[in-house]
Amino acid sequence: MTTHNSADFSIHNLPWGIFSLPGESPRVGVAYGDQILDMAAVAELDLFDFDTSVFYEDHLNPFIALGKQVTSRARTQVQSWLRDEQGPLSNHDHLFIPQSEATMHLPVRVGDYTDFYSSIEHATNVGKLFRDPDNALLPNWRHLPVGYHGRASSIIVSGQNFHRPKGQVMPPNATSPVFKASTRLDFELEMAFIIGKDSALGEPISTGEAPDYIFGMVLFNDWSARDIQKWEYVPLGPFLGKNFASSVSPWVVPLEALEPFRVPGPRQEPVVLEYLRCNGPQNYDIQLEVGLRPDGGEESVISRSNFKYMYWNMPQQLAHHTVNGCDVRVGDMLASGTISGPHPGSYGSLLEISEGGKKPLTLADGSTRTFLEDHDTLTLRGYAEKDGIRVGFGAVTATVLPAK
Amino acid sequence: MTTHNSADFSIHNLPWGIFSLPGESPRVGVAYGDQILDMAAVAELDLFDFDTSVFYEDHLNPFIALGKQVTSRARTQVQSWLRDEQGPLSNHDHLFIPQSEATMHLPVRVGDYTDFYSSIEHATNVGKLFRDPDNALLPNWRHLPVGYHGRASSIIVSGQNFHRPKGQVMPPNATSPVFKASTRLDFELEMAFIIGKDSALGEPISTGEAPDYIFGMVLFNDWSARDIQKWEYVPLGPFLGKNFASSVSPWVVPLEALEPFRVPGPRQEPVVLEYLRCNGPQNYDIQLEVGLRPDGGEESVISRSNFKYMYWNMPQQLAHHTVNGCDVRVGDMLASGTISGPHPGSYGSLLEISEGGKKPLTLADGSTRTFLEDHDTLTLRGYAEKDGIRVGFGAVTATVLPAK
Repeated sequence: MTTHNSADFSIHNLPWGIFSLPGESPRVGVAYGDQILDMAAVAELDLFDFDTSVFYEDHLNPFIALGKQVTSRARTQVQSWLRDEQGPLSNHDHLFIPQSEATMHLPVRVGDYTDFYSSIEHATNVGKLFRDPDNALLPNWRHLPVGYHGRASSIIVSGQNFHRPKGQVMPPNATSPVFKASTRLDFELEMAFIIGKDSALGEPISTGEAPDYIFGMVLFNDWSARDIQKWEYVPLGPFLGKNFASSVSPWVVPLEALEPFRVPGPRQEPVVLEYLRCNGPQNYDIQLEVGLRPDGGEESVISRSNFKYMYWNMPQQLAHHTVNGCDVRVGDMLASGTISGPHPGSYGSLLEISEGGKKPLTLADGSTRTFLEDHDTLTLRGYAEKDGIRVGFGAVTATVLPAK
Repeated sequence: MTTHNSADFSIHNLPWGIFSLPGESPRVGVAYGDQILDMAAVAELDLFDFDTSVFYEDHLNPFIALGKQVTSRARTQVQSWLRDEQGPLSNHDHLFIPQSEATMHLPVRVGDYTDFYSSIEHATNVGKLFRDPDNALLPNWRHLPVGYHGRASSIIVSGQNFHRPKGQVMPPNATSPVFKASTRLDFELEMAFIIGKDSALGEPISTGEAPDYIFGMVLFNDWSARDIQKWEYVPLGPFLGKNFASSVSPWVVPLEALEPFRVPGPRQEPVVLEYLRCNGPQNYDIQLEVGLRPDGGEESVISRSNFKYMYWNMPQQLAHHTVNGCDVRVGDMLASGTISGPHPGSYGSLLEISEGGKKPLTLADGSTRTFLEDHDTLTLRGYAEKDGIRVGFGAVTATVLPAK
């Protein structure tokens, strides 16, 4: 897999994002091939029947909040105009901006961010390493999509780098913790969906209603400091081991664009409780890839996975999240948890790939890794492809800067 | 302790909140006795040297974001005007609105909400009930203020009621979970502080800098469904057992108003790592009380505690939260965790008071409780008092409505 943004952003995709040009304000754009369709400029053509001031905002929330009826129709209209060589967008070169000239911004203002733990392979691998190899999967895992609340403020967009976190860790065989830079810095290969519609407090969303509340998806890298996490996480879960940074891809692929790639998920055994049952296939066949590039070196692909491996699907995650009355708001982000496949080559974290740091991985330049080193650049990519139709997510990338 | 709002909201206090009158927009007010000083109306008098449009907002964030220099001076100015019978607020009766006529709103837009677990008595009591009576306190507890991210969307203001949550629970001795309304619904007596200044990602806040980042405090009730929590919380922490609702008091007491009530905290043993060390007393002597009123009945005081019992103080919580580079934003809410004192009469949750449901509590009307029943009204109150100066928080109250 190479980063063919132009192939990812086909006429079948048309993802939404926030971009800016030097000296100009961030605004809404649509990715098309290697170009950005400047929606604020399109708004000037007076082609839409809704309030297009939403295209001048620096986050997608107001656009998304117009509702799927409006946003889906807007997408279909753009699609037909782009296909029409005599259409209203033709002879308007100023509407198109090369992606290479633009800076991308966080696409949404995230109210709440939730991280699930929905890959059975990942939960099993981590359970073996962190807890009991013989009872890796905890008793609740097959009954509900385990999840927890993460930090919204430290979600950053692809291209924004961050410093290796420092924190409190308990060294092996020590009796007192020490404060130091994390030496077990890891990535997590995830995807996230973005809420497209507010729900009311006290009103659960059923699995059947869920798609109406999902605007679209992004790639998500849930950076993790395993040493900090291991010491802090009992009994209330991960905190500083995660909340120093989480990276998302800049283009939000609308759920509609993923429709052709629906596939059945893994068989759920035992049968789930009624509020978690779904009709029809709810997984998506999205190929995923992780590249690790050492400072100045060439990139090695260190994992190939697929979103279809998810044991718990998005409607189940959303139905579970709200079944107690918890409300969701436009722009909320719900991440999948690490997406590991059944084989080592498809593991979605270095923790799993290196078996907890015991088995170093050899990169293309001959260097080895158990966890991430300073100046390593980690890139997640993903796309769906079928019958000549390709819908891709582009990439989410960041470089680990040394601890301050 | 009775609810003397008028005594709580003395000239020494002057907390900020968001109120509205029937048919009017929510705006900023200051509580004074049993009145509200309408700050939008005060703005019309042109007395301030900052942009007073912040007083017309329906949340305090823009005001808070002006910075402590501005907000503290504004408070001191209001204080001197209120004291001055010939001052600029005299002969302006329209500036004052009886609290009984106003509706209070959530005071801030909460970006991220974090809940700590900083009372050693509570952590010990819960550890005994949920885990191992002989090792109630986990190894990390005395080394760092354990915390986790909670749900911002479901934070509600005092007076807003909520329905008993439903969810998945594993009944005792069962082999499969069931879906039902929670039967172990509980409160948690907490306080929370509100962030007054943005920090940058990657930039820790030291314990010494912390007070500059704390705008003020509220009472906080972290409603908890113990049966849902018990089944879901391993390994990633509480989720649906908490995120159906959390209630806050409407008036934000500025940190400055609490200055006279500083006291030393419990001795921390072992000595904490350097980034958690503080100079001078960092706890506050704030008396707390919990009232439970059955449907149509009279209220019983079921607990009396004190914020001074906190093992980990607010500067330590904030320094720990950001030591890995996690950023905070104006309006973020950081709650203390349940504030239990050393004796059963000072326990901050029914889980502790009823010893996990084994020992029912008898109320004034003769009825008993292990956990909350439908139509129970639970009220937290708090105030500090010394040398004739009283600074109170008013109350945070809500009634449990039956499951839908």
